[in-house]
Amino acid sequence: MSTGKLRFGILGAGRIGRVHAETLAFRLPEAEIAAIADVNQEAAHALAARCGIPRVAASAAEIFADGMIDAVLICTSTDTHAGLIAQAAEAGKHIFCEKPVSLSLKKIDESLAAVEKAGVKLQVGFNRRFDSNFIRVRQAVASGEIGTPNLMHIISRDPAPPPLTYLRPSGGLFLDMMIHDFDMARYLLGDEVEEVYTAATVMVDPGFAKEDDFDTAVVVLRFKSGAIGTIDNSRKATFGYDQRVEILGSKGKIASENRYPNQVVVSGEKCVYTDLPLNFFMQRYTESFALELELFVKSVLEDKPTAVTGADSRVPVTMALAARKSHDEHRPVRLSEVE
Amino acid sequence: MSTGKLRFGILGAGRIGRVHAETLAFRLPEAEIAAIADVNQEAAHALAARCGIPRVAASAAEIFADGMIDAVLICTSTDTHAGLIAQAAEAGKHIFCEKPVSLSLKKIDESLAAVEKAGVKLQVGFNRRFDSNFIRVRQAVASGEIGTPNLMHIISRDPAPPPLTYLRPSGGLFLDMMIHDFDMARYLLGDEVEEVYTAATVMVDPGFAKEDDFDTAVVVLRFKSGAIGTIDNSRKATFGYDQRVEILGSKGKIASENRYPNQVVVSGEKCVYTDLPLNFFMQRYTESFALELELFVKSVLEDKPTAVTGADSRVPVTMALAARKSHDEHRPVRLSEVE
Amino acid sequence: MSTGKLRFGILGAGRIGRVHAETLAFRLPEAEIAAIADVNQEAAHALAARCGIPRVAASAAEIFADGMIDAVLICTSTDTHAGLIAQAAEAGKHIFCEKPVSLSLKKIDESLAAVEKAGVKLQVGFNRRFDSNFIRVRQAVASGEIGTPNLMHIISRDPAPPPLTYLRPSGGLFLDMMIHDFDMARYLLGDEVEEVYTAATVMVDPGFAKEDDFDTAVVVLRFKSGAIGTIDNSRKATFGYDQRVEILGSKGKIASENRYPNQVVVSGEKCVYTDLPLNFFMQRYTESFALELELFVKSVLEDKPTAVTGADSRVPVTMALAARKSHDEHRPVRLSEVE
Amino acid sequence: MSTGKLRFGILGAGRIGRVHAETLAFRLPEAEIAAIADVNQEAAHALAARCGIPRVAASAAEIFADGMIDAVLICTSTDTHAGLIAQAAEAGKHIFCEKPVSLSLKKIDESLAAVEKAGVKLQVGFNRRFDSNFIRVRQAVASGEIGTPNLMHIISRDPAPPPLTYLRPSGGLFLDMMIHDFDMARYLLGDEVEEVYTAATVMVDPGFAKEDDFDTAVVVLRFKSGAIGTIDNSRKATFGYDQRVEILGSKGKIASENRYPNQVVVSGEKCVYTDLPLNFFMQRYTESFALELELFVKSVLEDKPTAVTGADSRVPVTMALAARKSHDEHRPVRLSEVE
Repeated sequence: MSTGKLRFGILGAGRIGRVHAETLAFRLPEAEIAAIADVNQEAAHALAARCGIPRVAASAAEIFADGMIDAVLICTSTDTHAGLIAQAAEAGKHIFCEKPVSLSLKKIDESLAAVEKAGVKLQVGFNRRFDSNFIRVRQAVASGEIGTPNLMHIISRDPAPPPLTYLRPSGGLFLDMMIHDFDMARYLLGDEVEEVYTAATVMVDPGFAKEDDFDTAVVVLRFKSGAIGTIDNSRKATFGYDQRVEILGSKGKIASENRYPNQVVVSGEKCVYTDLPLNFFMQRYTESFALELELFVKSVLEDKPTAVTGADSRVPVTMALAARKSHDEHRPVRLSEVE
Repeated sequence: MSTGKLRFGILGAGRIGRVHAETLAFRLPEAEIAAIADVNQEAAHALAARCGIPRVAASAAEIFADGMIDAVLICTSTDTHAGLIAQAAEAGKHIFCEKPVSLSLKKIDESLAAVEKAGVKLQVGFNRRFDSNFIRVRQAVASGEIGTPNLMHIISRDPAPPPLTYLRPSGGLFLDMMIHDFDMARYLLGDEVEEVYTAATVMVDPGFAKEDDFDTAVVVLRFKSGAIGTIDNSRKATFGYDQRVEILGSKGKIASENRYPNQVVVSGEKCVYTDLPLNFFMQRYTESFALELELFVKSVLEDKPTAVTGADSRVPVTMALAARKSHDEHRPVRLSEVE
Repeated sequence: MSTGKLRFGILGAGRIGRVHAETLAFRLPEAEIAAIADVNQEAAHALAARCGIPRVAASAAEIFADGMIDAVLICTSTDTHAGLIAQAAEAGKHIFCEKPVSLSLKKIDESLAAVEKAGVKLQVGFNRRFDSNFIRVRQAVASGEIGTPNLMHIISRDPAPPPLTYLRPSGGLFLDMMIHDFDMARYLLGDEVEEVYTAATVMVDPGFAKEDDFDTAVVVLRFKSGAIGTIDNSRKATFGYDQRVEILGSKGKIASENRYPNQVVVSGEKCVYTDLPLNFFMQRYTESFALELELFVKSVLEDKPTAVTGADSRVPVTMALAARKSHDEHRPVRLSEVE
Repeated sequence: MSTGKLRFGILGAGRIGRVHAETLAFRLPEAEIAAIADVNQEAAHALAARCGIPRVAASAAEIFADGMIDAVLICTSTDTHAGLIAQAAEAGKHIFCEKPVSLSLKKIDESLAAVEKAGVKLQVGFNRRFDSNFIRVRQAVASGEIGTPNLMHIISRDPAPPPLTYLRPSGGLFLDMMIHDFDMARYLLGDEVEEVYTAATVMVDPGFAKEDDFDTAVVVLRFKSGAIGTIDNSRKATFGYDQRVEILGSKGKIASENRYPNQVVVSGEKCVYTDLPLNFFMQRYTESFALELELFVKSVLEDKPTAVTGADSRVPVTMALAARKSHDEHRPVRLSEVE
C-alpha cells in the first residue's frame, strides 16, 4: 500500500474470478492486481491478458510469499476456501473470499481463528447485500420506515438447474443456493433466526433425488424478535432469475421486484408484455459484485471493519445445516441443535 | 319458480346479509326476495325498506314454512349455520350459506347429510373463487399455461384487526380468516393438501394472546401432487387489504396483485406514489359477491351442480383444525389426523 | 317526485339507452322509469321487458305530455338532440342528454335558451368526468397537488373504427370522438382553450378519406393560463381502448393508466405479460355511466346545479369546429374565429 | 493501431469529457488515451491523473500533430466543434464529436465536407440511440412488431433548468435540448420529418423569456410516411429526469418508461410509493455513453460505418431551426424552408 493502492493476488480464474478481476482492473482505481494463480494455467493466462495482470503465479503459495501483495481474492472451489484463508492469514494478507467459507462449521471455526490471530481483514462474498434493491429494503427496516418487521418472504429462484455433476461438491440446495438467502434474511431484518422448518422436494428434475438433493424448497424461519419468515427456492424459473423480497412491518410493507433489461412495454394484439427479467446473477448482480469489492478495498485502506464479517460467514452455514436436518427429521429444528 | 324467477328468503340482515340482498334486489333480474328475517327486527325492517322486500318474517321457521320460497340465504352467525341448513333442507329449500358451515366437523357432516337426503342444492360463500383475479389464476393452472404447479404463495392480510370480542365465537385466525385461503389453495391448484405446518404468533395486539388466538401466521401446505404452498395471514396491513397469490409452475409464474381505486400515478418531489389499494373485502370483492349469487341462482334454475359444494365447505375446516394442531404440537400435522 | 323518486321517460332504446336504463332500474333506488319510446318499437319493448319499464310510449311527444314524468333521458341520434331538448324544456321536464347536443352552435344556443327559459335542469353526458381515474387527476390539479399545470397530454384511442356508414352523421373525428377529449381538457385543467392546431391524417382505413374524415389526429391546445396540451386520437388501437391522461405541473406529474380486467401478471418462457386492457367504453366507463346518472338524479332531487351544464356542452363543439378549421386552413386557429 | 488498440487524443476535460475518458480508460480494453488537452490546464491534469492519461497536451494542435494518435474525442464547447472537426479531419484523425456539430448549417456542411475529403470516420454523440430502452423500441419498429407507426410521442424533461448564463451560447431549447429528441424521432421511426409546428412558452422561469428562449414546448412532427409525432420538452420536472417515448403502430403500441434506482415499492399508511426516477443524464444514460464509444472504437478498428453519421448530425439542426421559425411565425414550417 506504499503506492496508496491495494495490491491484490487472485486465486482462481474461473467465472467469479473473472468478474472480480475485471472490477479490480477496470473500475477500482484504488486497487491493482499484482498476480493471479489457477491450477488451470491456461485460464490464468487468459484472464491476465484480458485484465493486464503482470504475473501468472505458479501456485497460491507463490502469491502468499510475495511481500508486495497486500490482499488475496479467493475464488477457488469451495473445498479449498478454508485452507487458503488460513494460509493467507498466516502470510498476513487481507482476504476476500467467495461464499461459503466451508460446508463444515469446524473448518470455518479454524479459518476464523487463523484470521483473528493474524489480525487481517476478512470479507465474505455475500454480494446480494450490495444490490441497490436490497440496500433500499434494509434501509427501510433499519430506519423504521415500515415499523417493526412481522413477516418476511424471500423468493430466490434460478433460471435453470446446474449440471448434476455440480451438485455433490456444492453441498446441495441449502448450502449452495439458499445460503445466500439465509444471509439476506439476517441482513435485511437485522435479526437472528432461532428455528427453521423445511419443506423440500424434487419437482424439476429427478436427478436431484439421486444426488440426495432437492430442487424445490420452502424454509420457515422463526426470528428472535418473533418475526416469521419464509425462503422459497427453486432451481428452475423458466422466465429468468427470480430474486425478490417482501417484508410486512407494523407500519407498512416493502417489496422489491425483479430487474429487467429495459423499461419497455408492448401492447400487442393478444397481450401486454415486456421482455423477461435479467437472466442470471451475472447480469442481475453486476453492480453488487463491484460494490462489494469497492467496500472491501476501502475497509482495508481505511482500516475499518469489513461489511461481511467472518461471523456472517458462519451463521448461514448453521442455518443450512439446520434446514437439512429439519427435512431429514420432518420437524422444526433449532439452530442450537446443529452447533 | 313458477314465475321463472328464484324466490329467496333471507336469514340475517347484518353486513353480509345486506350485500347479498342488494345483489338479489338490484342486479339479478332472475331472482326476487320474498321475505327476510333477523333476530334484530329493526335491521330486518331497514334492509327490507332499502331493497323493496315485501315481508319481514318473525322467524326463520316462518320462512322455511313459506311454500312460495324456493331458496334461502343464510347470513346469520356461524354457530347457527349448521342447524339452519338442516332445517332448510328438510323444508326443501335450496341453500346459499355463508362460510364456514360450522367449526365442528361433526355438525358439518350432519348438515351435509340433511342436504343430501333432501336433494336440495347447497352453495357455500367462498366468494373469492369468483374474483376476476383468482379466476384468471385458476384458468392459467387449469389450462396448463404455467405448466405443473410447484410452489404457491397466498398472502391474505386484513387492514386492521377486528374487535377482540369478535374473536372468540369466530373460531380464531385459522377458522375465521385463513379458512378463505385454505379454500383458495385447493381451488387454485385443483389439488388437495395432505399435511400442514404452522408458525403462528402475536405481533399486532397482545389481546390476541389472551384469547388464545394469533394475529400473524404462516402455514406451509404439502399437496398430494408434491407441490408446496404457504399461506401468510396478518390481522394488520396498514396500507389496506392485502390479497395476493403467486404460483410457480414448470413453465412459468402467475401472480395477482392488489386492486386499486384508480390507475393514477403521481410523481412528486419526494417520491412516486399511488393511492392505497382498496381497503377491505366489501370494496375488493364486490364483484365476486355478486357473481357467486348469480351462479347460485343459475345452478338452481338450470338444475346444475353449485360452484362451491358441501364437500368444499368441509375440507377447509379440516385444514384449519390441522393448522391449529400443528401449532399446538409444534410439528407438521397430516389432515388425516384430525378427521 | 311525490313518491320521493325521480320518474324518468327514456327516449331511445339503443346501446347507450340500454346502459342508462339498466342503471336507473337496477342501481338507483331514487329513480324509476315510467316509460320508454323509440322509433324502433321492438327495441323499446325489449328494453322495457328487461328493465321492468311499465309502458312503451308511441312517441316522444307522449312522454313529454305525461304529467307524471319528471325527467327525460335523451339517448336518440345526435341530429334529434337539440329539438328534443327544446320540447322537453317546454314540457317542463328535467333533461339528461347524450353528447353532443348538436353539431351546430346555433342549434345548441336555441336549446340552451329553451332550457334557461323553462328553468329546468340539463346535464350532458360527458361521462368521463365521472371516471375514478379522471376524478383523481382533477383532484390533484384542483388541490394544487402537482402545482400549476404546464403540459397536458390526452391519449384517446378506440379499439377499432366504427362502420363507415356511422361516420357521416356523426360529424367526424373531432365532433364525434375528440369531443370527449375537448371536454376532458377543460375539466381536468379547469381552464379554457384559446387556440388549437390540428395535424390529422388517414392511417387506418382509406375509407375515412372518402368520407372527408380522419382516423388519426393530434391537436395542440393553447390554454388561457399559458399551458400547452395535446390530444391524440386514433380509431384503431389493436390492444383495446386506450384512455390515458398526463399532466406536468410545477410541483410534479400525474398520469392515469388504462384499466385492466384483472391484476394478474404471467411470467412465461418468452415474455412477461398481462391480459389486454378493458376493450371498449362499455367496460371501461361502466362506473362513470352509473355515477353521472346518480349525480343527475341527486341534483334534481336536491335542486342543485348539474355536474355538466349546458355551457359545458357548447364549448367542446366550438373546439371541434376550430380543430377542423385548423386542419382545413393548415394553421393555428383561435376559438374566437368559429364563434 | 499498430498495437491493435485505438489511441485517442481527448479535447475537453469538462463534464462530458470526463465521462468519455473514464469509459476509454476503464471499460474499453481496445482503446487507450494518449493525450488530453483543455484550455483549463488544471482540469486536464486532474482528469489525466484520474484516468492514467500519460500526457497533457498544450493545445489541440499538438494532439492533431501527434502521429501516434488515431482518433480524437471532441468534448469542447459547441462553438468550437466545427473548426476542430475540420482540423482533425485534415490531420487524418477519426473523430468522435459531441452534439451538435454546430448551430449553423453552413459550418456543419463545411465540417462534413472536410471529413469526407479526408476519408476519416465521424460519429456524433447522440448517445440516446444506445440506451437499452430506445434500442428496444427501435427494434420493435424495425422488425414490424408493432406494425406501421402512426403516432409517436417523445417526452423529454430535465429535472431543473440550467443556469441562465448557460442558455445563450447553447442555442436555446430547440438546438440544445430538443435536438436529442429530433434525433430520436428520426432514429426510432426510421423516417424523416417534413414539417413541424411549435407551441412554446415560458412557464418555469421568466428568465428564459429575457434570453429569448423557452422552458416549455410541444413540437408536432409530420413524417414522410404520414405518421404524426409530438415532442414535449420542459426544463423542470421536479421528480427527476423524465425520458419516455411511445409509438402507436397498426399492430400495437410500444412505450418505454423511466428508469429507477431500484425496483422497490413501499406500501405506507398514506400511499404506495417508490423512490424517484434516476435524476439526470449522467445516471440515466450511463450505459449509452459507454456503448456509443464502444461502437465508435469498433467501427474504426473494423473499418465499418459509424452508428451516427455526419448526415445524422445535420438533420436535427435543420429541425431545430424549423421549430424555432414555426414559433416565430406562428405557423407550421416545412424543413425545406430552412435549408
